[in-house]
Amino acid sequence: MHWLDYSTDNCSVQRTMNIIGEKWTMIVLREVFNGVRRFEQMRGHTGISEPILSARLRTLVDAGVLDTVPYQESGRRTRHEYRLTDKGRELYPVLIALLQWGDRHCADQEGPALTVHHHDCGEPVAAVVQCEAGHRVEPRDADVFPGPGAQRAG
Amino acid sequence: MHWLDYSTDNCSVQRTMNIIGEKWTMIVLREVFNGVRRFEQMRGHTGISEPILSARLRTLVDAGVLDTVPYQESGRRTRHEYRLTDKGRELYPVLIALLQWGDRHCADQEGPALTVHHHDCGEPVAAVVQCEAGHRVEPRDADVFPGPGAQRAG
Repeated sequence: MHWLDYSTDNCSVQRTMNIIGEKWTMIVLREVFNGVRRFEQMRGHTGISEPILSARLRTLVDAGVLDTVPYQESGRRTRHEYRLTDKGRELYPVLIALLQWGDRHCADQEGPALTVHHHDCGEPVAAVVQCEAGHRVEPRDADVFPGPGAQRAG
Repeated sequence: MHWLDYSTDNCSVQRTMNIIGEKWTMIVLREVFNGVRRFEQMRGHTGISEPILSARLRTLVDAGVLDTVPYQESGRRTRHEYRLTDKGRELYPVLIALLQWGDRHCADQEGPALTVHHHDCGEPVAAVVQCEAGHRVEPRDADVFPGPGAQRAG
């Protein structure tokens, strides 16, 4: 297909970026994937300002990526912590792909700040592109076709 | 590890997002991965304004993700087109991971705008998280450890 012949209006990459395509949004998701679920903890750990953190969390809750769950510490009012929904957990390949690229190209000389391993066998974890038959796929090995929602460029 | 005990200053996700963490940057990369390499084509196809497109391309060239290659159409001055470097091609898992999440959660009712298949066998392509031993890894199957560059939170 000639990509130029098709509209970008309903591109899935673009729609995904409309939800998570802001640096702090991925940072919030990194925190939640790493078990940091409470507003004050995230704020302190990431250094994101309160209004921006509130706005990013709201975007993710509105998009169904995070859920809020109430909790209460003794003597304090009820607060909410943020948990990944199934839809949110499906962003794991995005997070790991960003992590591995950064580890390869942007890490300090000493190496990455953290490493991710498979619990069962201990091997390091990576995001790979492969087809349903299990073959690794590089960009040059892929064919792109108009999908059922393809629209001709106007 | 307790992620809160560690500094986020050298987080690879954060550093990657410093380069590509802006919606239009991924859109520019989508164009180049799909063979759209010339400024005017990108501008027309994406609707990105000239100054923003110029700025995003500059960021990507400065980061070593794109290279410029001169070309000349007859009777016109020399221009440059944009090609992925090896470093840029290594962003493929990020792009495919964004695409598949959007296809699953944000596509039109008719379905995705495009589909990606392995050239050799025709099977659809996906971004998956797996360990070096080839096991699929979900977030709950992963252990995170401090890496060689880990820094205690200050």
